[in-house]
Amino acid sequence: MKNKLILLIAIYTLTSLILQSQDVFKTQRTAWLQKAEALKPKLAQVKVKPVHAITTRPDRGAFQGWRVDRKWSTDSLFTKSFKNQTGLILDFGQHLTGYFTMKLEEIRGVADAPTRIKLTFGEVPSEVSVPFEPYNGDLSRAWLQDEIVTVSEMPSEFTLTRRVSFRYVKLELLGASRFFDFKIADAWCMAGTSAAAVPPPLKPTTYEAIAKIDSIARNTLKECMQTVFEDGPKRDRRLWIGDLYLQSITNNHTFKNHNLTKRCLYLLAGLSTEEGYLPSNVFERPGPHSQKGAPFLFEYSLLYNATLLEYLKATNDRTTALDLWPVAKKQLDNPKKFMLDNGLFNDTAAAANRWWLFIDWKEGLDKQAPIQGLIIFALNQTVELAKMLGKQNEVAEIPALVEKMKKACMDHLYDKDLGLFVSGPGKQVSFASQAWMVLAGVTDTAESQKILTYVKEHPTAVKPGGPYLMHYYVEALMRSGLTSAARQQILSYWGNMVIKGADTFWEVYDPENDYASPYKFYPVNSYCHAWSCTPAYFIRKYPEVFQQ
Amino acid sequence: MKNKLILLIAIYTLTSLILQSQDVFKTQRTAWLQKAEALKPKLAQVKVKPVHAITTRPDRGAFQGWRVDRKWSTDSLFTKSFKNQTGLILDFGQHLTGYFTMKLEEIRGVADAPTRIKLTFGEVPSEVSVPFEPYNGDLSRAWLQDEIVTVSEMPSEFTLTRRVSFRYVKLELLGASRFFDFKIADAWCMAGTSAAAVPPPLKPTTYEAIAKIDSIARNTLKECMQTVFEDGPKRDRRLWIGDLYLQSITNNHTFKNHNLTKRCLYLLAGLSTEEGYLPSNVFERPGPHSQKGAPFLFEYSLLYNATLLEYLKATNDRTTALDLWPVAKKQLDNPKKFMLDNGLFNDTAAAANRWWLFIDWKEGLDKQAPIQGLIIFALNQTVELAKMLGKQNEVAEIPALVEKMKKACMDHLYDKDLGLFVSGPGKQVSFASQAWMVLAGVTDTAESQKILTYVKEHPTAVKPGGPYLMHYYVEALMRSGLTSAARQQILSYWGNMVIKGADTFWEVYDPENDYASPYKFYPVNSYCHAWSCTPAYFIRKYPEVFQQ
Repeated sequence: MKNKLILLIAIYTLTSLILQSQDVFKTQRTAWLQKAEALKPKLAQVKVKPVHAITTRPDRGAFQGWRVDRKWSTDSLFTKSFKNQTGLILDFGQHLTGYFTMKLEEIRGVADAPTRIKLTFGEVPSEVSVPFEPYNGDLSRAWLQDEIVTVSEMPSEFTLTRRVSFRYVKLELLGASRFFDFKIADAWCMAGTSAAAVPPPLKPTTYEAIAKIDSIARNTLKECMQTVFEDGPKRDRRLWIGDLYLQSITNNHTFKNHNLTKRCLYLLAGLSTEEGYLPSNVFERPGPHSQKGAPFLFEYSLLYNATLLEYLKATNDRTTALDLWPVAKKQLDNPKKFMLDNGLFNDTAAAANRWWLFIDWKEGLDKQAPIQGLIIFALNQTVELAKMLGKQNEVAEIPALVEKMKKACMDHLYDKDLGLFVSGPGKQVSFASQAWMVLAGVTDTAESQKILTYVKEHPTAVKPGGPYLMHYYVEALMRSGLTSAARQQILSYWGNMVIKGADTFWEVYDPENDYASPYKFYPVNSYCHAWSCTPAYFIRKYPEVFQQ
Repeated sequence: MKNKLILLIAIYTLTSLILQSQDVFKTQRTAWLQKAEALKPKLAQVKVKPVHAITTRPDRGAFQGWRVDRKWSTDSLFTKSFKNQTGLILDFGQHLTGYFTMKLEEIRGVADAPTRIKLTFGEVPSEVSVPFEPYNGDLSRAWLQDEIVTVSEMPSEFTLTRRVSFRYVKLELLGASRFFDFKIADAWCMAGTSAAAVPPPLKPTTYEAIAKIDSIARNTLKECMQTVFEDGPKRDRRLWIGDLYLQSITNNHTFKNHNLTKRCLYLLAGLSTEEGYLPSNVFERPGPHSQKGAPFLFEYSLLYNATLLEYLKATNDRTTALDLWPVAKKQLDNPKKFMLDNGLFNDTAAAANRWWLFIDWKEGLDKQAPIQGLIIFALNQTVELAKMLGKQNEVAEIPALVEKMKKACMDHLYDKDLGLFVSGPGKQVSFASQAWMVLAGVTDTAESQKILTYVKEHPTAVKPGGPYLMHYYVEALMRSGLTSAARQQILSYWGNMVIKGADTFWEVYDPENDYASPYKFYPVNSYCHAWSCTPAYFIRKYPEVFQQ
């Protein structure tokens, strides 16, 4: 009996020890989060007033079917009865992220009852034009930026506690006393960003359309730079690794707020799982936390390593890179978990294990070949990082794995007849597959040029679904020396958003369908989205490509 | 030319002097408002939690057609998914006035999107059961207490900035992420009142139904006692003289917060017009102000004097009464303005001059006779006040005016055949006319008993439309010695509200029509209204009437 008890205690103690030891970064975690906290930027704030008032009207030729109908001075709003102007839209002339304030004043009689006003904030005209109800979107209805306020007394100045992201705000009067009248005496936004620096100007010989795209791309990034690199200031308002990678490389060529990248790298490391793997996204409020229980976004965890490498290259901050190296190294566990003996990553087994393989917002896209390429790319980046840090010995087995995976690409994913990489049991041809094979270095320059050219001619090749994959496709073109094609792609894709009136680049853009939405309701799309900011990276990294 | 200029300057100077001298209380106004401010009470605050959760369902037998369907413990709400409980109603078990707070906590996953919740506060079940839209009421839609909140993060604790007045709060989920679940972890109201004292208990021999009415009446008054005597804490949330008079006499017999009465008397005096006349109602926020441009509510200005008299009697505070005496005296100008030579007040001329003659919320009620009685009553009260202050000489002409007005009542408004007072060209018979003639002392006790009895038997006599006039009718019964009838009236009118579930007495009550509303939408009625609190006054002023 006594022996049994001792045995039980021993087992209990041992189990506890094992459970404790599961948190691989237990000793570093707190320090990492403290570093992230210490790096939290104070936002640059600016008070912005609307430039004019507008109304919108349906127009099949306009983006999403809504165009600005009338424009007039805000003088009328700020001096005359609001009762006669309900429904008007304030146009701030630019995309803003911050806190909205409005002042109300009596112009006749005394407010003997509260006043009820609905405010609808929109990044694009459709958001302040179409009804939100009935709402059948996939994401929370609460992302839509309409708020109803009750103003109990006048004069009154109120600031919405919700941070909003908008260019337009529609004001609708839902209730007021008949026995008085009032005006909107003033309205403004205290807009914030952590992108305070002014990037160096482009060469004067840069194509005009390119300069315009660059300016909108920079603005997109600026708006997403808050106390972290957010994916979108309207939605999801948080730090995603996939966005961070693209933001940080663009930031390296523009605002150079490297401390913000550093903060994000530490935040993610501090919030890694007990196994040491990185969460796809993290939240800052109420305290830093990750989305426990969410699917593991495998490729994003690998892109962390690429981000850390680019941070090191841009800053030469070896201290931080060395501090976070164990996290990068730890991510290398995962590719091996579903690696077949033939060097192919088993994407279906990973997906069956609740791993999320994203690649692109594109219905029907097969992930096998692109994820294979992405893994090779990330492994290469990690090895490069290790070399810079003198840690080659810790990744000694990776180069061999890379070679094996590359060979598998040629043996199993390359269709010699087509001269293209194919993906999955259906042998799907996609831009995603070719782009990632190029970025993985599976093909040499000549081969890269061939597959990137052939894929455009392939009749059923799956095209990029959105700006995120479009970035990697353009990067593949650049790295293959197809620089004119890269420039043309930027002009035709991002340039087309400019023509359609973009102030910031959109999360989702299908040139053939303005209403495309992965969430089944296009107004809930983000119209200022981090992963769309990379033209500013291309234009500044490869300036020679963009000169007249 | 030079002479002309001098003349113009002289005219200008003279005009300025005259215009300046128009503010009759210029020298006292600031001091009065400062005294009011100094008397602003600190509210007694208490944190109240809901007692259970309910749903309502249509029931033609229930008040306004809605009854409580199910009741259950709040444990379920506070521990389980709110997604499955949307639409439930928290029942706080009592009427409250204050600030509502709610705590939200995740129970599965992480909130990866904001949450949108609609809260609808109701004093009675119908307010949390019927749709508010489309709204066709006469008063501002914003009085209705529904608010929509966007909760950007979890856990979250938020307090509505709007003060609410309610027993019930319906909670409806308008939007949330599909990828997590949450509960309402807690909810409470910080309820406030300036009625902190506990009134002495009624005699144990008091009728049980009367004790119940007394308790609800006291509660009504307590809820209306905030930083002023409000007419209703839901609506209009301000100080009206007509309500103040009834509240202050009830307060004299219950909470005895005489400083609150004093504050209100000073506030009104400080906000009198430049001519020295009293506004019918005043607002506290953002700063003390009156409803400039609103019609002059003649009878309320006179009831100020009655309020000051009752304040003096209850407190013996001669300093305040003497300080405010000039205001009371000034109000005596007005009856004379539309006084005919025969001693009748010309109500139609006054109404044509935008004077508001209220008397009662009752369609078609003729005001001539009741306003005649009310003026006499107020003149008598003012003379009594003057005597107590040694100011008889300042109202020396009033007793003669009173006698002349009384005689005019008998000569022109009394119908000998009917044995009743009649009003207006149509010789309308109403409870209002008889009640005010009694209170004016136009009739002696025997005559008073006669007219108050006859009017009940008159087939087309206009009945009281609401609790405000009902008060004066009951007071008339009391003063005529018809105390059993007075008690019966309280039991049948206020007692009927109790039977229908009142927690506080209602602004509008027609025993034959639960949906009566002067505002064309019964949910906007106030269901905790100052002028309905006077049973507590009657029961405590005339205790012998209410014993078994």
